[in-house]
Amino acid sequence: MKKPIILVTNDDGIYAPGIHALVEALSDIGTIKVVAPLSEMSAVGHAITLSDPLRVKEIELDGRFLGLAVNGTPADCVKLALSCLLESMPDIIVSGINAGSNTATNVIYSGTVSAAAEGVVYGIPSIAVSLTSFTYKDFEYAAKVARHITSQVLLNGLPKRTILNVNVPAVPETQIKGIRATRQGKGRYEEEFDKRRDPQGRTYYWMAGKRVILDTDEDVDDIAISNNYVAVTPIQYDLTHHSFLKDLTQWKLKP
Amino acid sequence: MKKPIILVTNDDGIYAPGIHALVEALSDIGTIKVVAPLSEMSAVGHAITLSDPLRVKEIELDGRFLGLAVNGTPADCVKLALSCLLESMPDIIVSGINAGSNTATNVIYSGTVSAAAEGVVYGIPSIAVSLTSFTYKDFEYAAKVARHITSQVLLNGLPKRTILNVNVPAVPETQIKGIRATRQGKGRYEEEFDKRRDPQGRTYYWMAGKRVILDTDEDVDDIAISNNYVAVTPIQYDLTHHSFLKDLTQWKLKP
Repeated sequence: MKKPIILVTNDDGIYAPGIHALVEALSDIGTIKVVAPLSEMSAVGHAITLSDPLRVKEIELDGRFLGLAVNGTPADCVKLALSCLLESMPDIIVSGINAGSNTATNVIYSGTVSAAAEGVVYGIPSIAVSLTSFTYKDFEYAAKVARHITSQVLLNGLPKRTILNVNVPAVPETQIKGIRATRQGKGRYEEEFDKRRDPQGRTYYWMAGKRVILDTDEDVDDIAISNNYVAVTPIQYDLTHHSFLKDLTQWKLKP
Repeated sequence: MKKPIILVTNDDGIYAPGIHALVEALSDIGTIKVVAPLSEMSAVGHAITLSDPLRVKEIELDGRFLGLAVNGTPADCVKLALSCLLESMPDIIVSGINAGSNTATNVIYSGTVSAAAEGVVYGIPSIAVSLTSFTYKDFEYAAKVARHITSQVLLNGLPKRTILNVNVPAVPETQIKGIRATRQGKGRYEEEFDKRRDPQGRTYYWMAGKRVILDTDEDVDDIAISNNYVAVTPIQYDLTHHSFLKDLTQWKLKP
């Protein structure tokens, strides 16, 4: 049987440990193609680069070819990989493993998720995988989960235009309670901008914030994670508010 | 009666003609506060700036104070305006008028829409307004539509976490057939990267593409526009694929 082709990308950049752990975990279930940003691209959302040229660089890790780095966003990487760089279309796209969670409202800022979203725009089943900590460095269990869910998607497929957004609690495997199919929560970061003065006396602002969880149901991503469950949220990009659309047709829309 | 406070922003930057037309059209129905990007920020999606300081600059137009410019993305502008720059919360946020449509799959790349989306994260009713051409320069009718729909939203409110994404055909008002409540289409840009060589002989890629419309129904944004109707699509940011979630609970998710 022909091995599936797996396109691996991320938003922390091609030198991030999370993507290396992912490549290692997936290497025996498919032929791995890495196309990832040259530098860190966190919180770029679904940005694409229209006004600058994109360049591609071959990257080695420990003396072996790892993949291609692009001086652009995660969405750029996927677009360029699918349009120009790969010889054939991949069977699946796996984005990650991100350092830091991509849950609730924060999904819309996520470069990791946007890479997967770009995959489904092209009709390719895609997965985003995140470890819910910026500081916890053990990607081993998250990589094992990524490998298993990748196999399951290769086996079962996914509905059209659907990605799986996987968030793995940043705790040792022995503390993991299980895996849940979840909904996207409503929580968000509550911004607190630090207002500071630079050495020239000019004001600047630095974005900071604390996480606010607004949900309580056990099947919500952030709640599952706080209970030490891996959260697997199926997401899609028809943003239409279908239930309100009918009401809107009754509005006096014409000026 | 107290005049409503209207926060106006965009992604083409504070010097773009579309935002000036919008400010002028809205100025008699509310107190206008402009906080917009200092430079053009098209296709930045929902990017936010975490790793650089944000600076704020007072901007004049024709010798009169216009508003505040931020060296960041549309989402940064809204976050900073709501957290630090405005004395009180606005009653509504209006983003635009963008030069170029924000319909179908392209909504996910749109800085114009992301500014409005940021508004609803904060619980403020928000509208995105786009004129469906990069070259057509007459914002007058689009501004009239923006003014009317802003008034309607101030009157009727919007469901929680909902924005109205308004796209105005780039034709003279006499050719406009009407206004439709629409759904987000499935069309997208089909990328064609130009592969070129720079003067040093190194390869680079430049993103290009042509618009592909995949829908036919009259209540889809792109179809309404091509029939010279203004398209008003209600959108929301719960990305959960609810109908697939039940199937997913049957998967063998545990590795």
